[in-house]
Amino acid sequence: MYAVIMAGGEGTRFWPLSRAACPKQFLGILGGEPLLVQTLKRLEGLIPPERIIVTVNRKHREVAQRLVGNLPPENLIVEPRIRDTAPCIGLAASIIRKRAGDQTILCLPSDHIIHPAEGLRECLRHAEACVSGDPAALYTIGIRPTYPATGYGYILRGSAVQEVDGNTVYEVSSFHEKPSVAVAEAYFDSGDYFWNSGIFFWRTDAILEAVRRRLPELHEGLQQLAPDLDTAGMEAALARVFPRLPRISLDYGVLEQADRVRVVEGRFAWDDVGTWRVLRGHLPADEHSNVKQGNVVAMDSSGCVLYAGGDHLVAALGVRDLIIVSTPDATLVTTREQAERVRDLVAKLKEHRLDRYL
Amino acid sequence: MYAVIMAGGEGTRFWPLSRAACPKQFLGILGGEPLLVQTLKRLEGLIPPERIIVTVNRKHREVAQRLVGNLPPENLIVEPRIRDTAPCIGLAASIIRKRAGDQTILCLPSDHIIHPAEGLRECLRHAEACVSGDPAALYTIGIRPTYPATGYGYILRGSAVQEVDGNTVYEVSSFHEKPSVAVAEAYFDSGDYFWNSGIFFWRTDAILEAVRRRLPELHEGLQQLAPDLDTAGMEAALARVFPRLPRISLDYGVLEQADRVRVVEGRFAWDDVGTWRVLRGHLPADEHSNVKQGNVVAMDSSGCVLYAGGDHLVAALGVRDLIIVSTPDATLVTTREQAERVRDLVAKLKEHRLDRYL
Repeated sequence: MYAVIMAGGEGTRFWPLSRAACPKQFLGILGGEPLLVQTLKRLEGLIPPERIIVTVNRKHREVAQRLVGNLPPENLIVEPRIRDTAPCIGLAASIIRKRAGDQTILCLPSDHIIHPAEGLRECLRHAEACVSGDPAALYTIGIRPTYPATGYGYILRGSAVQEVDGNTVYEVSSFHEKPSVAVAEAYFDSGDYFWNSGIFFWRTDAILEAVRRRLPELHEGLQQLAPDLDTAGMEAALARVFPRLPRISLDYGVLEQADRVRVVEGRFAWDDVGTWRVLRGHLPADEHSNVKQGNVVAMDSSGCVLYAGGDHLVAALGVRDLIIVSTPDATLVTTREQAERVRDLVAKLKEHRLDRYL
Repeated sequence: MYAVIMAGGEGTRFWPLSRAACPKQFLGILGGEPLLVQTLKRLEGLIPPERIIVTVNRKHREVAQRLVGNLPPENLIVEPRIRDTAPCIGLAASIIRKRAGDQTILCLPSDHIIHPAEGLRECLRHAEACVSGDPAALYTIGIRPTYPATGYGYILRGSAVQEVDGNTVYEVSSFHEKPSVAVAEAYFDSGDYFWNSGIFFWRTDAILEAVRRRLPELHEGLQQLAPDLDTAGMEAALARVFPRLPRISLDYGVLEQADRVRVVEGRFAWDDVGTWRVLRGHLPADEHSNVKQGNVVAMDSSGCVLYAGGDHLVAALGVRDLIIVSTPDATLVTTREQAERVRDLVAKLKEHRLDRYL
């Protein structure tokens, strides 16, 4: 098996801690190791380093090189432009096929919280057995909802098609975008929906065939790149071709259109670390429901997420349900509900030519 | 006439901009010149520098020296310990009496906002004529309330005792602490109350006699200091005596007890710069009622005071009626109502041994 760890994201939703020069996958948002390092560690003993590919944006080559440790240099794939997950996964699959022929590939985001790691490993150990049941299908890992989340995409499962060591493989009946509260509650109550974890596995040939059928433009680009992959000319070829590839997610461009998509339940706690609210789920709260990280003082305040980066001090006085994040050069103050819009705020900072804070 | 500018305060209510090492009187809170410099400029042409005394705490000797410009060095009185306004004014009056005998003294806080300056100057020009009417009385300047403020002390005026160039001098009937909303409204509606501006004037002998009668302990201390005032031994004498003087305000310790206190209306806009709310009164608001100073971005936010010091960026997303103040090393988030309690927050920081942020 091969693994592809996708670390090319911008991480704008974690501004001001996450910056253009150092998005969240390279940071320990919850105070631990950088999320990318945690992701790599989860694969230890399961996939050897020479079979792990990490994809990063050109801007983050250096920070990624420092973090990936003993990964062979040729396994750090540098994308010259932000192009979302479909080009990223298509490129990685093309490289793996060129190196090793048809293989099972695990695709993992680099910036999620998963615990215990063994829960994910247990799931991935069965990937080979799953795909051998139907090598042409595409497999996603679904998480059984623990509450009616509105911040995740959902997967409606269809009939069971296979049983692997006590794990049921289901057909995917449909994918659903982040729902409203009412819809999320209906999904949650039905028991037929999984959260879409963004963790996938499939045979190289299956995903590349799906790309060929659903995203011909991407397929065409990958064909152009093929002769140069893993050669001295690869960087130049990528610089030429990659920016012209369609900017589209694999979910939207391929999975939601594909014929044979399966879902397997991942039995582990999972969070896509989508907004600053995540701290509430993963760090202990004080007696006034404040979650604190760093140099933080709260007085007559409750329900707040208070994050101070570096030596900065955050002091809250008489406030409720706020999210306050400070770094030495920038401070964000928002609410739990508005935290999903930090991305829009970052766009506004760009508009205002405040790029030095991004 | 002499002037005494009181610049010995700690300015804790303006944390985190105002610090122990540089309280608000040495800062341009509203983006202009330091408040002490503004106070000095208001006296230009009215009182010559050699007759202006500035009192500061020992910790601020250097910053004050830089700001007081052409003031004779012996006119910067350095207090070795925080002791509130009664010891400060008593000491300054003793020095002036030793230098020049009985004189009219204007006492002004160093950290208030007043405009136009000419309004204050017009008022002070009549001080001499007022005190000559009753040289044994103590005079305060009252401000006619423009709204039912709860953040100021009030003065109930009594009968008119004198008319000076169209300015009526009233007896002070009573002093009143910061009122509740209902009481403030009653004061405001009655038309008989002034705000207590904290600006005073009186003859040297009158104030020292009032101190002798109402604060015998302070009088005793000033007697001990008398031989050393304006000598090479003054600093040593102050170090010995000043810390043992009572820590009490002149309002509370003398004026509220004194027999002959008068109030004259000051015809100028006045603000004692008591909390961060002051920015709302003195800086223009944007179309969403946000008042901004420094590098600030507000998105879907309203009614906020947003202050970014230095190169720090403050970004508010989807919040209302907050006060957010950031400096490179500390951020305060509070509400308009809670802003009066910043002093308590600062005390809490001390408790938490976070002195490096004070």
